[in-house]
Amino acid sequence: MRLYDYAASQNGYKVRLLLAHLGTPYQTEWVDIFAGEARTGAFLQKNPSGTVPVLEPSPGVFLPESNAILFYLAQGTAYWPNTALAQAQALRWMFFEQESHQPSIAALRHWTLTGKLSRYPALVEGKRRLGQTVLSVMQQQLATQPFFAGGRYSVADICLYAYTHLAHEGGFVLEGYPAVVDWLARVRAQPGHLAQVFAYPPSASGYLPSEREVG
Amino acid sequence: MRLYDYAASQNGYKVRLLLAHLGTPYQTEWVDIFAGEARTGAFLQKNPSGTVPVLEPSPGVFLPESNAILFYLAQGTAYWPNTALAQAQALRWMFFEQESHQPSIAALRHWTLTGKLSRYPALVEGKRRLGQTVLSVMQQQLATQPFFAGGRYSVADICLYAYTHLAHEGGFVLEGYPAVVDWLARVRAQPGHLAQVFAYPPSASGYLPSEREVG
Repeated sequence: MRLYDYAASQNGYKVRLLLAHLGTPYQTEWVDIFAGEARTGAFLQKNPSGTVPVLEPSPGVFLPESNAILFYLAQGTAYWPNTALAQAQALRWMFFEQESHQPSIAALRHWTLTGKLSRYPALVEGKRRLGQTVLSVMQQQLATQPFFAGGRYSVADICLYAYTHLAHEGGFVLEGYPAVVDWLARVRAQPGHLAQVFAYPPSASGYLPSEREVG
Repeated sequence: MRLYDYAASQNGYKVRLLLAHLGTPYQTEWVDIFAGEARTGAFLQKNPSGTVPVLEPSPGVFLPESNAILFYLAQGTAYWPNTALAQAQALRWMFFEQESHQPSIAALRHWTLTGKLSRYPALVEGKRRLGQTVLSVMQQQLATQPFFAGGRYSVADICLYAYTHLAHEGGFVLEGYPAVVDWLARVRAQPGHLAQVFAYPPSASGYLPSEREVG
Protein backbone atom coordinates (compact mmCIF):
# COMPACT_ATOMS: atom_id res chain seq x y z
CA MET A 1 0.00 0.00 0.00
CA ARG A 2 1.31 3.40 -0.99
CA LEU A 3 0.29 6.90 0.11
CA TYR A 4 0.93 9.95 -2.07
CA ASP A 5 1.27 12.72 0.45
CA TYR A 6 2.64 16.18 1.25
CA ALA A 7 4.11 16.54 4.73
CA ALA A 8 2.46 19.86 5.64
CA SER A 9 -0.98 18.76 4.42
CA GLN A 10 -3.45 18.23 7.23
CA ASN A 11 -5.56 16.15 4.87
CA GLY A 12 -2.51 13.93 4.54
CA TYR A 13 -1.99 13.97 8.30
CA LYS A 14 -5.48 12.53 8.84
CA VAL A 15 -4.53 9.45 6.87
CA ARG A 16 -1.14 9.13 8.57
CA LEU A 17 -2.85 9.37 11.97
CA LEU A 18 -5.31 6.56 11.19
CA LEU A 19 -2.53 4.39 9.72
CA ALA A 20 -0.52 4.95 12.92
CA HIS A 21 -3.47 3.78 15.04
CA LEU A 22 -3.91 0.72 12.84
CA GLY A 23 -0.21 -0.07 12.72
CA THR A 24 -0.58 -0.72 9.00
CA PRO A 25 2.70 -0.72 7.07
CA TYR A 26 2.75 1.48 3.98
CA GLN A 27 5.11 3.33 1.71
CA THR A 28 5.01 7.09 1.25
CA GLU A 29 5.64 8.91 -1.98
CA TRP A 30 6.09 12.58 -1.20
CA VAL A 31 4.56 14.95 -3.74
CA ASP A 32 5.82 18.52 -3.64
CA ILE A 33 2.52 20.11 -4.57
CA PHE A 34 3.84 23.65 -4.52
CA ALA A 35 6.61 22.69 -6.93
CA GLY A 36 3.90 21.49 -9.33
CA GLU A 37 4.42 17.78 -8.77
CA ALA A 38 0.66 17.21 -8.39
CA ARG A 39 0.06 18.78 -11.81
CA THR A 40 2.20 16.45 -13.85
CA GLY A 41 0.56 14.09 -16.32
CA ALA A 42 1.73 11.11 -14.28
CA PHE A 43 0.10 12.39 -11.08
CA LEU A 44 -3.09 13.49 -12.81
CA GLN A 45 -3.47 9.91 -14.03
CA LYS A 46 -3.66 8.95 -10.34
CA ASN A 47 -5.94 11.82 -9.34
CA PRO A 48 -7.31 14.12 -12.04
CA SER A 49 -8.11 16.70 -9.34
CA GLY A 50 -4.39 17.12 -8.67
CA THR A 51 -4.70 16.92 -4.90
CA VAL A 52 -3.07 14.88 -2.16
CA PRO A 53 -3.45 12.58 -0.35
CA VAL A 54 -4.08 9.69 -2.73
CA LEU A 55 -4.05 6.09 -1.54
CA GLU A 56 -2.87 3.26 -3.79
CA PRO A 57 -4.27 0.24 -1.91
CA SER A 58 -3.09 -2.14 -4.62
CA PRO A 59 -0.91 -1.39 -7.64
CA GLY A 60 -2.69 0.79 -10.16
CA VAL A 61 -5.79 1.40 -7.99
CA PHE A 62 -6.03 5.01 -6.79
CA LEU A 63 -8.30 6.51 -4.15
CA PRO A 64 -8.22 10.33 -3.70
CA GLU A 65 -10.00 12.45 -1.05
CA SER A 66 -8.71 12.14 2.51
CA ASN A 67 -12.10 11.39 4.04
CA ALA A 68 -12.87 8.65 1.52
CA ILE A 69 -9.46 7.15 2.34
CA LEU A 70 -10.31 7.26 6.07
CA PHE A 71 -13.60 5.45 5.33
CA TYR A 72 -11.79 2.78 3.29
CA LEU A 73 -9.01 2.12 5.77
CA ALA A 74 -11.36 2.07 8.77
CA GLN A 75 -13.70 -0.64 7.42
CA GLY A 76 -13.78 -3.56 9.83
CA THR A 77 -11.82 -1.70 12.51
CA ALA A 78 -12.77 0.03 15.76
CA TYR A 79 -12.39 3.41 14.03
CA TRP A 80 -15.59 2.95 11.99
CA PRO A 81 -18.85 2.96 14.00
CA ASN A 82 -20.84 -0.25 13.95
CA THR A 83 -24.42 0.90 13.28
CA ALA A 84 -25.76 2.49 10.11
CA LEU A 85 -26.95 5.55 12.01
CA ALA A 86 -23.63 6.10 13.81
CA GLN A 87 -21.80 5.59 10.50
CA ALA A 88 -24.03 8.19 8.89
CA GLN A 89 -23.37 10.56 11.80
CA ALA A 90 -19.62 10.03 11.35
CA LEU A 91 -19.97 10.91 7.67
CA ARG A 92 -22.18 13.84 8.57
CA TRP A 93 -19.25 15.34 10.52
CA MET A 94 -16.80 14.47 7.76
CA PHE A 95 -18.95 16.27 5.18
CA PHE A 96 -19.33 19.16 7.64
CA GLU A 97 -15.54 19.26 7.78
CA GLN A 98 -15.22 19.58 4.00
CA GLU A 99 -18.15 21.93 3.58
CA SER A 100 -17.74 24.33 6.55
CA HIS A 101 -14.51 23.66 8.43
CA GLN A 102 -12.11 23.64 5.47
CA PRO A 103 -13.33 26.88 3.82
CA SER A 104 -13.10 28.72 7.16
CA ILE A 105 -10.63 27.29 9.67
CA ALA A 106 -8.29 25.62 7.17
CA ALA A 107 -8.58 28.47 4.67
CA LEU A 108 -7.71 31.23 7.17
CA ARG A 109 -4.72 29.23 8.39
CA HIS A 110 -3.58 28.89 4.79
CA TRP A 111 -4.14 32.57 4.06
CA THR A 112 -2.34 33.57 7.27
CA LEU A 113 0.70 31.40 6.62
CA THR A 114 0.95 32.39 2.96
CA GLY A 115 0.43 36.11 3.48
CA LYS A 116 -2.87 36.28 1.57
CA LEU A 117 -4.94 37.58 4.46
CA SER A 118 -4.99 41.15 3.18
CA ARG A 119 -6.37 40.37 -0.27
CA TYR A 120 -10.06 40.08 0.58
CA PRO A 121 -10.81 41.69 3.95
CA ALA A 122 -14.57 41.22 3.57
CA LEU A 123 -14.11 37.55 2.77
CA VAL A 124 -11.76 37.10 5.72
CA GLU A 125 -14.45 38.50 7.96
CA GLY A 126 -17.02 36.07 6.55
CA LYS A 127 -14.64 33.14 6.94
CA ARG A 128 -13.85 34.24 10.51
CA ARG A 129 -17.56 34.25 11.35
CA LEU A 130 -18.10 30.87 9.68
CA GLY A 131 -15.12 29.45 11.58
CA GLN A 132 -16.60 30.67 14.86
CA THR A 133 -19.92 29.05 13.95
CA VAL A 134 -18.07 25.83 13.14
CA LEU A 135 -16.33 25.87 16.52
CA SER A 136 -19.64 26.59 18.26
CA VAL A 137 -21.27 23.64 16.51
CA MET A 138 -18.38 21.41 17.60
CA GLN A 139 -18.60 22.79 21.14
CA GLN A 140 -22.32 22.04 21.26
CA GLN A 141 -21.74 18.41 20.18
CA LEU A 142 -18.79 17.87 22.50
CA ALA A 143 -20.48 19.44 25.52
CA THR A 144 -22.66 16.32 25.79
CA GLN A 145 -20.70 13.64 23.89
CA PRO A 146 -17.04 12.63 24.28
CA PHE A 147 -16.59 12.11 20.52
CA PHE A 148 -18.41 12.98 17.29
CA ALA A 149 -20.15 9.70 16.41
CA GLY A 150 -21.28 6.54 18.14
CA GLY A 151 -19.95 7.56 21.55
CA ARG A 152 -16.38 6.58 20.75
CA TYR A 153 -13.28 7.75 18.92
CA SER A 154 -13.69 7.26 15.16
CA VAL A 155 -12.61 8.55 11.77
CA ALA A 156 -14.91 11.54 12.36
CA ASP A 157 -12.64 12.66 15.22
CA ILE A 158 -9.49 12.00 13.21
CA CYS A 159 -10.94 14.05 10.36
CA LEU A 160 -11.88 17.04 12.51
CA TYR A 161 -8.76 16.93 14.68
CA ALA A 162 -6.38 17.67 11.80
CA TYR A 163 -7.22 21.31 11.10
CA THR A 164 -8.81 22.04 14.49
CA HIS A 165 -5.65 21.40 16.48
CA LEU A 166 -3.87 23.99 14.33
CA ALA A 167 -6.76 26.47 14.24
CA HIS A 168 -4.72 28.95 16.29
CA GLU A 169 -2.39 29.30 13.30
CA GLY A 170 -5.33 30.89 11.48
CA GLY A 171 -6.05 33.25 14.35
CA PHE A 172 -8.79 31.29 16.09
CA VAL A 173 -8.77 31.27 19.88
CA LEU A 174 -10.01 27.94 21.20
CA GLU A 175 -10.27 29.00 24.84
CA GLY A 176 -13.88 30.04 24.27
CA TYR A 177 -14.73 26.47 23.27
CA PRO A 178 -13.70 24.43 26.34
CA ALA A 179 -15.33 21.17 25.22
CA VAL A 180 -13.32 21.40 22.00
CA VAL A 181 -10.11 21.92 23.98
CA ASP A 182 -10.91 18.89 26.16
CA TRP A 183 -11.70 16.80 23.10
CA LEU A 184 -8.36 17.73 21.50
CA ALA A 185 -6.68 16.33 24.63
CA ARG A 186 -8.80 13.15 24.46
CA VAL A 187 -7.76 12.65 20.83
CA ARG A 188 -4.08 13.11 21.71
CA ALA A 189 -4.47 10.52 24.51
CA GLN A 190 -5.70 7.77 22.15
CA PRO A 191 -3.43 4.72 21.87
CA GLY A 192 -1.08 5.03 18.92
CA HIS A 193 -1.58 8.78 18.49
CA LEU A 194 0.79 10.30 15.97
CA ALA A 195 1.82 13.86 16.72
CA GLN A 196 2.22 16.30 13.89
CA VAL A 197 5.77 16.00 12.61
CA PHE A 198 6.98 17.59 9.42
CA ALA A 199 9.66 15.06 8.59
CA TYR A 200 9.85 16.28 5.02
CA PRO A 201 11.34 19.69 4.30
CA PRO A 202 8.70 22.14 3.14
CA SER A 203 8.69 23.39 -0.40
CA ALA A 204 11.32 25.85 -1.54
CA SER A 205 8.49 28.35 -1.85
CA GLY A 206 8.18 28.36 1.91
CA TYR A 207 5.97 26.95 4.62
CA LEU A 208 2.76 26.14 2.82
CA PRO A 209 0.27 24.22 4.89
CA SER A 210 -2.63 23.49 2.57
CA GLU A 211 -2.76 21.61 -0.68
CA ARG A 212 -5.37 23.82 -2.29
CA GLU A 213 -5.60 27.48 -2.91
CA VAL A 214 -9.36 27.39 -3.25
CA GLY A 215 -11.11 28.76 -0.24
CA MET B 1 -39.62 9.63 8.53
CA ARG B 2 -39.47 13.36 8.07
CA LEU B 3 -37.32 15.56 5.81
CA TYR B 4 -36.64 19.19 6.65
CA ASP B 5 -36.12 20.74 3.25
CA TYR B 6 -36.19 23.87 1.11
CA ALA B 7 -37.67 23.42 -2.34
CA ALA B 8 -35.00 25.30 -4.30
CA SER B 9 -32.11 23.56 -2.51
CA GLN B 10 -30.23 21.16 -4.73
CA ASN B 11 -28.86 19.49 -1.60
CA GLY B 12 -32.49 18.84 -0.68
CA TYR B 13 -33.24 17.66 -4.22
CA LYS B 14 -30.56 14.95 -3.92
CA VAL B 15 -32.44 13.41 -1.02
CA ARG B 16 -35.83 13.75 -2.72
CA LEU B 17 -34.39 12.05 -5.81
CA LEU B 18 -33.10 9.05 -3.86
CA LEU B 19 -36.36 8.78 -1.91
CA ALA B 20 -38.26 8.79 -5.23
CA HIS B 21 -36.12 5.91 -6.51
CA LEU B 22 -36.67 3.99 -3.31
CA GLY B 23 -40.39 4.71 -3.17
CA THR B 24 -40.00 5.43 0.53
CA PRO B 25 -42.89 7.35 2.07
CA TYR B 26 -41.90 10.41 4.10
CA GLN B 27 -43.23 13.71 5.32
CA THR B 28 -41.72 17.04 4.35
CA GLU B 29 -41.39 20.02 6.60
CA TRP B 30 -40.52 23.03 4.45
CA VAL B 31 -38.02 25.41 6.04
CA ASP B 32 -37.89 28.87 4.49
CA ILE B 33 -34.18 29.36 4.99
CA PHE B 34 -34.11 32.84 3.51
CA ALA B 35 -36.83 33.94 5.90
CA GLY B 36 -34.58 32.82 8.79
CA GLU B 37 -36.47 29.65 9.62
CA ALA B 38 -33.22 27.62 9.77
CA ARG B 39 -31.83 30.03 12.38
CA THR B 40 -34.52 29.62 14.99
CA GLY B 41 -33.70 27.92 18.28
CA ALA B 42 -36.04 25.05 17.43
CA PHE B 43 -34.30 24.35 14.11
CA LEU B 44 -30.79 24.75 15.54
CA GLN B 45 -31.67 22.01 18.02
CA LYS B 46 -32.13 19.74 15.00
CA ASN B 47 -29.04 20.97 13.17
CA PRO B 48 -26.72 23.44 14.92
CA SER B 49 -25.21 24.33 11.53
CA GLY B 50 -28.56 25.81 10.48
CA THR B 51 -28.63 24.12 7.07
CA VAL B 52 -31.11 21.96 5.18
CA PRO B 53 -31.73 19.17 4.41
CA VAL B 54 -32.04 17.38 7.74
CA LEU B 55 -33.49 13.88 7.98
CA GLU B 56 -35.45 12.75 11.03
CA PRO B 57 -35.42 8.97 10.53
CA SER B 58 -37.16 8.39 13.84
CA PRO B 59 -38.70 10.96 16.19
CA GLY B 60 -36.04 13.09 17.84
CA VAL B 61 -33.11 11.67 15.83
CA PHE B 62 -31.65 14.20 13.37
CA LEU B 63 -29.20 13.65 10.55
CA PRO B 64 -27.91 16.75 8.69
CA GLU B 65 -25.68 16.92 5.58
CA SER B 66 -27.25 15.79 2.31
CA ASN B 67 -24.49 13.33 1.44
CA ALA B 68 -24.61 11.66 4.86
CA ILE B 69 -28.37 11.33 4.39
CA LEU B 70 -27.81 9.71 0.98
CA PHE B 71 -25.39 7.24 2.59
CA TYR B 72 -27.89 6.40 5.33
CA LEU B 73 -30.91 5.92 3.07
CA ALA B 74 -28.97 3.89 0.51
CA GLN B 75 -27.70 1.23 2.94
CA GLY B 76 -28.90 -2.19 1.84
CA THR B 77 -30.21 -0.88 -1.50
CA ALA B 78 -28.95 -0.98 -5.09
CA TYR B 79 -27.92 2.69 -4.78
CA TRP B 80 -24.96 1.89 -2.48
CA PRO B 81 -22.08 -0.05 -4.11
CA ASN B 82 -21.40 -3.50 -2.70
CA THR B 83 -17.63 -3.59 -2.26
CA ALA B 84 -15.56 -1.54 0.18
CA LEU B 85 -13.46 -0.09 -2.64
CA ALA B 86 -16.48 0.91 -4.75
CA GLN B 87 -18.13 2.39 -1.63
CA ALA B 88 -14.97 4.40 -0.96
CA GLN B 89 -14.92 5.56 -4.58
CA ALA B 90 -18.57 6.66 -4.26
CA LEU B 91 -17.65 8.67 -1.16
CA ARG B 92 -14.57 10.02 -2.94
CA TRP B 93 -16.89 11.63 -5.52
CA MET B 94 -19.28 12.82 -2.82
CA PHE B 95 -16.44 14.54 -0.94
CA PHE B 96 -15.19 15.93 -4.26
CA GLU B 97 -18.67 17.37 -4.73
CA GLN B 98 -18.59 19.17 -1.37
CA GLU B 99 -14.97 20.25 -1.66
CA SER B 100 -14.69 21.33 -5.32
CA HIS B 101 -18.06 21.24 -7.05
CA GLN B 102 -20.07 23.22 -4.47
CA PRO B 103 -17.64 26.15 -4.08
CA SER B 104 -17.42 26.55 -7.87
CA ILE B 105 -20.42 25.30 -9.85
CA ALA B 106 -23.01 25.68 -7.09
CA ALA B 107 -21.51 28.94 -5.83
CA LEU B 108 -21.48 30.66 -9.22
CA ARG B 109 -25.09 29.61 -9.83
CA HIS B 110 -26.00 31.09 -6.47
CA TRP B 111 -24.07 34.29 -7.12
CA THR B 112 -25.62 34.61 -10.60
CA LEU B 113 -29.18 34.11 -9.43
CA THR B 114 -28.80 36.41 -6.44
CA GLY B 115 -26.96 39.18 -8.26
CA LYS B 116 -23.72 38.83 -6.31
CA LEU B 117 -21.53 38.09 -9.31
CA SER B 118 -20.09 41.59 -9.48
CA ARG B 119 -18.82 41.72 -5.89
CA TYR B 120 -15.57 39.81 -6.28
CA PRO B 121 -14.53 39.65 -9.94
CA ALA B 122 -11.19 38.00 -9.14
CA LEU B 123 -12.91 35.34 -7.05
CA VAL B 124 -15.48 34.71 -9.77
CA GLU B 125 -12.62 34.10 -12.18
CA GLY B 126 -11.04 31.60 -9.77
CA LYS B 127 -14.35 29.83 -9.22
CA ARG B 128 -14.94 29.73 -12.98
CA ARG B 129 -11.56 28.05 -13.48
CA LEU B 130 -12.18 25.59 -10.63
CA GLY B 131 -15.61 24.77 -12.07
CA GLN B 132 -14.03 24.04 -15.46
CA THR B 133 -11.48 21.78 -13.77
CA VAL B 134 -14.32 20.02 -11.94
CA LEU B 135 -16.18 19.43 -15.21
CA SER B 136 -12.96 18.18 -16.84
CA VAL B 137 -12.41 15.73 -13.98
CA MET B 138 -15.99 14.48 -14.37
CA GLN B 139 -15.55 14.25 -18.16
CA GLN B 140 -12.39 12.19 -17.69
CA GLN B 141 -14.18 9.73 -15.39
CA LEU B 142 -17.27 9.47 -17.55
CA ALA B 143 -15.35 9.05 -20.81
CA THR B 144 -14.50 5.50 -19.72
CA GLN B 145 -17.18 4.63 -17.11
CA PRO B 146 -20.96 4.99 -17.36
CA PHE B 147 -21.28 6.11 -13.73
CA PHE B 148 -19.03 7.39 -10.94
CA ALA B 149 -18.56 4.30 -8.76
CA GLY B 150 -18.81 0.54 -9.09
CA GLY B 151 -19.93 0.63 -12.72
CA ARG B 152 -23.52 1.40 -11.89
CA TYR B 153 -25.84 4.23 -10.87
CA SER B 154 -25.37 5.06 -7.17
CA VAL B 155 -25.64 7.84 -4.61
CA ALA B 156 -22.44 9.30 -6.10
CA ASP B 157 -24.34 10.02 -9.33
CA ILE B 158 -27.36 11.38 -7.46
CA CYS B 159 -25.05 13.66 -5.49
CA LEU B 160 -23.23 15.06 -8.53
CA TYR B 161 -26.34 15.28 -10.73
CA ALA B 162 -28.06 17.87 -8.52
CA TYR B 163 -25.89 20.93 -9.18
CA THR B 164 -24.39 19.69 -12.48
CA HIS B 165 -27.71 19.57 -14.31
CA LEU B 166 -28.25 23.24 -13.42
CA ALA B 167 -24.64 24.32 -14.06
CA HIS B 168 -25.77 26.42 -17.03
CA GLU B 169 -27.59 28.69 -14.57
CA GLY B 170 -24.13 29.64 -13.28
CA GLY B 171 -22.81 30.32 -16.76
CA PHE B 172 -21.12 26.97 -17.42
CA VAL B 173 -21.41 25.57 -20.93
CA LEU B 174 -21.61 21.77 -20.81
CA GLU B 175 -21.26 21.19 -24.54
CA GLY B 176 -17.48 20.98 -24.13
CA TYR B 177 -17.93 18.00 -21.80
CA PRO B 178 -19.86 15.50 -23.95
CA ALA B 179 -19.47 12.54 -21.58
CA VAL B 180 -21.01 14.69 -18.82
CA VAL B 181 -23.95 15.57 -21.10
CA ASP B 182 -24.48 11.88 -21.93
CA TRP B 183 -24.28 10.95 -18.23
CA LEU B 184 -26.93 13.56 -17.36
CA ALA B 185 -29.24 11.82 -19.85
CA ARG B 186 -28.42 8.40 -18.35
CA VAL B 187 -29.31 9.72 -14.89
CA ARG B 188 -32.61 11.13 -16.15
CA ALA B 189 -33.39 7.74 -17.73
CA GLN B 190 -33.10 5.84 -14.43
CA PRO B 191 -36.33 4.17 -13.21
CA GLY B 192 -38.15 6.39 -10.76
CA HIS B 193 -36.27 9.56 -11.73
CA LEU B 194 -37.72 12.67 -10.15
CA ALA B 195 -37.43 15.79 -12.26
CA GLN B 196 -36.69 19.08 -10.57
CA VAL B 197 -40.01 20.59 -9.57
CA PHE B 198 -40.35 23.56 -7.31
CA ALA B 199 -43.69 22.66 -5.83
CA TYR B 200 -43.17 25.10 -2.99
CA PRO B 201 -43.27 28.82 -3.70
CA PRO B 202 -39.82 30.36 -3.35
CA SER B 203 -39.06 32.75 -0.55
CA ALA B 204 -40.54 36.21 -0.61
CA SER B 205 -37.00 37.45 -1.06
CA GLY B 206 -36.97 35.91 -4.52
CA TYR B 207 -35.63 32.89 -6.32
CA LEU B 208 -32.78 31.73 -4.11
CA PRO B 209 -31.23 28.48 -5.15
CA SER B 210 -28.69 27.64 -2.49
CA GLU B 211 -29.02 27.20 1.23
CA ARG B 212 -25.68 28.73 2.10
CA GLU B 213 -24.13 32.02 1.32
CA VAL B 214 -20.61 30.75 1.93
CA GLY B 215 -18.67 30.18 -1.24
